[in-house]
Amino acid sequence: MPTFNPLVETLAAPPIPSVFAWGRSYDGRSGPMIDLSQAVPGYPAHPDMLALLAECAGSTTYTGYGPIEGETVLREAYAAHVSEICGAAIGAGNIHVTAGCNQAFICAAMAIAGAGDSVLMTNPYYFNQETTLAMLGVKTRFAACDPDNGFLPDVASIADAITPDVRALALVSPNNPTGAIYPADLLGTIFDLCRDRGIWLILDETYRDFLPEGMSCAHDLFGRAGWEETLIGLYSFSKSFCIPGHRLGAITAGSAVVEQVAKIMDNLQICPPRSAQAAVARALPLLADWRAENRREIARRALAMKAAMAELSLWQIGAIGAYFAFVRHPFETASSSQVAEQLAKRAGVLCLPGVYFGAGQERYLRFAFANADAATIGLLPARLSGFDLA
Amino acid sequence: MPTFNPLVETLAAPPIPSVFAWGRSYDGRSGPMIDLSQAVPGYPAHPDMLALLAECAGSTTYTGYGPIEGETVLREAYAAHVSEICGAAIGAGNIHVTAGCNQAFICAAMAIAGAGDSVLMTNPYYFNQETTLAMLGVKTRFAACDPDNGFLPDVASIADAITPDVRALALVSPNNPTGAIYPADLLGTIFDLCRDRGIWLILDETYRDFLPEGMSCAHDLFGRAGWEETLIGLYSFSKSFCIPGHRLGAITAGSAVVEQVAKIMDNLQICPPRSAQAAVARALPLLADWRAENRREIARRALAMKAAMAELSLWQIGAIGAYFAFVRHPFETASSSQVAEQLAKRAGVLCLPGVYFGAGQERYLRFAFANADAATIGLLPARLSGFDLA
Repeated sequence: MPTFNPLVETLAAPPIPSVFAWGRSYDGRSGPMIDLSQAVPGYPAHPDMLALLAECAGSTTYTGYGPIEGETVLREAYAAHVSEICGAAIGAGNIHVTAGCNQAFICAAMAIAGAGDSVLMTNPYYFNQETTLAMLGVKTRFAACDPDNGFLPDVASIADAITPDVRALALVSPNNPTGAIYPADLLGTIFDLCRDRGIWLILDETYRDFLPEGMSCAHDLFGRAGWEETLIGLYSFSKSFCIPGHRLGAITAGSAVVEQVAKIMDNLQICPPRSAQAAVARALPLLADWRAENRREIARRALAMKAAMAELSLWQIGAIGAYFAFVRHPFETASSSQVAEQLAKRAGVLCLPGVYFGAGQERYLRFAFANADAATIGLLPARLSGFDLA
Repeated sequence: MPTFNPLVETLAAPPIPSVFAWGRSYDGRSGPMIDLSQAVPGYPAHPDMLALLAECAGSTTYTGYGPIEGETVLREAYAAHVSEICGAAIGAGNIHVTAGCNQAFICAAMAIAGAGDSVLMTNPYYFNQETTLAMLGVKTRFAACDPDNGFLPDVASIADAITPDVRALALVSPNNPTGAIYPADLLGTIFDLCRDRGIWLILDETYRDFLPEGMSCAHDLFGRAGWEETLIGLYSFSKSFCIPGHRLGAITAGSAVVEQVAKIMDNLQICPPRSAQAAVARALPLLADWRAENRREIARRALAMKAAMAELSLWQIGAIGAYFAFVRHPFETASSSQVAEQLAKRAGVLCLPGVYFGAGQERYLRFAFANADAATIGLLPARLSGFDLA
């Protein structure tokens, strides 16, 4: 048998399905499974969203190939939205629609780095970004986020890690897995550093719509002069509109970046799936209030999560923010995978081991609290307080 | 400004949009534009297909993330379909659904080759396969197809071109751009060659559903013992169901290949768009008769194309088959781009220059005759007979 690409063959299997397998072997002894594993909204899409998806999918208007960069209506609607929330002047030409934010990341990564180049990430990091780079032969370097500083990235560590082979820094804010929301001044300082050192800043804002109320955009970067020459913004429509199955994300960048990404996307997929784009273009203004209410709901869940963890003296929140909490478990000598597996199988709490997000994260677990309502989150103290490793 | 990945930056812009631009500057002097450019069906999707797409897109069942490898219903339905038409025993575990056949190709390519490896292609080739490999840093080698042999690949040329760095041979049959249908015994011989030389055979059968009637599968390869260790089949639902905008394709391969592709797809897109998968799973048996009639319709268009070209003494069909004709134009010293541009702007005939499909193809144009009905194709002799370069 001919061989496989070793960069792919040596990748670990995708982590989420193996976590689901742990969940399936839970016998229900502690009550219904509390699923805090995958970053999916714990409430359904709005009926109007579903009606728009149905209307557009049933139309011949979207059966043919569409523009590589995405439907003009969505590029315009999303550019207007970003301009409004970020106080910036983003145009449709700054937007490239993708089939989800993972695809936005691989397109951005391929546009700026090839095999042998390096991309700098934080530790912890979003695992699919690391595996994406690995399978492309792009090397990764890491700047550690200090748990004692709420897992915020450290500017000096980043500066030190920008060696000549580094083409970009990849950040996620609000962060996956920690939930940490990077403050505007920190993002501004990091932006300046990247610009001064001549590297790209890839900023994944998948969870932007779940920032605290009144904080519609976490930073002013899209409004800075010359932002197009440093910043590549990534976004997902999956979480905000509760439609990850329809695969829709976007890149916000300079037109020169969009031009490079279009060449990649033409090879990857010709165009993003069309009918969902048309539907979301209409939903974007239409469902603004519903999305604002969801923002408040996720904030309530974050409060419930904090309250739940406060009842547990041995468990500690390392960071919490939009969507995720990165929680320190009490088992000093156990691996995070051991703890997560046993939590799933015996306590009926499904979460992801810290080690999935980086070496040295064995003491942590990622709780995607956005998946569960406040009442369900309130069950955590009972589940966790009596839990011990078998 | 930080730099781009030179492998992407040096790629030419996607060719189809520039051809559309030629079309837009046609003033209508010779009558309505005859669009033979992009490989899209010239008739609409079936109303039942649209109804299924609408029903599934409007359902909450498909809003969440789905299996990376694709919806089980589609994997099962397509496996049953391939098993039936190819007389083979393909299971759902042999199928990986993708967002279109370009994505199937890049997944197959990444699974078996990395930067610095080589993949062998024919010349002419489908341009997106060449640019996909180029942007990944995978080198390409070419085995020429002889125009005097209907552009069929030559086994001896392929054997000579399999140097130690070659990891796979990529074939397209029925071919894009030539339309040539590779005979079963030729494919069998090439399969044996690839197996004996220890390389993968990636066989793109996007146009399989438009083989001549009675020829449901062009070969017996999926029924051969040990096929999984050599063959990776690619397919598109776009052409057959007239839904390219919904982006749906599939890989048929051994489970070991599917496992590698799942790791790639998880990074690329997490899962293919879900609702269209569910819709096509139901349409696959339901629209069998409609698809059979379309096969006959495309055959009628091929006959019309042959008849039209027979009226033109200076123009000559190099190859013709399912969907495409590769036509030799009469202008010895002109480039194929010059001819295609002037045909578009002055004769109102939109087609692709041969050079898009490989060096040395300057005398040829690709006519995607499937886009136009027989009556429209019948207008070609009048348009072409009086045509000369400006």
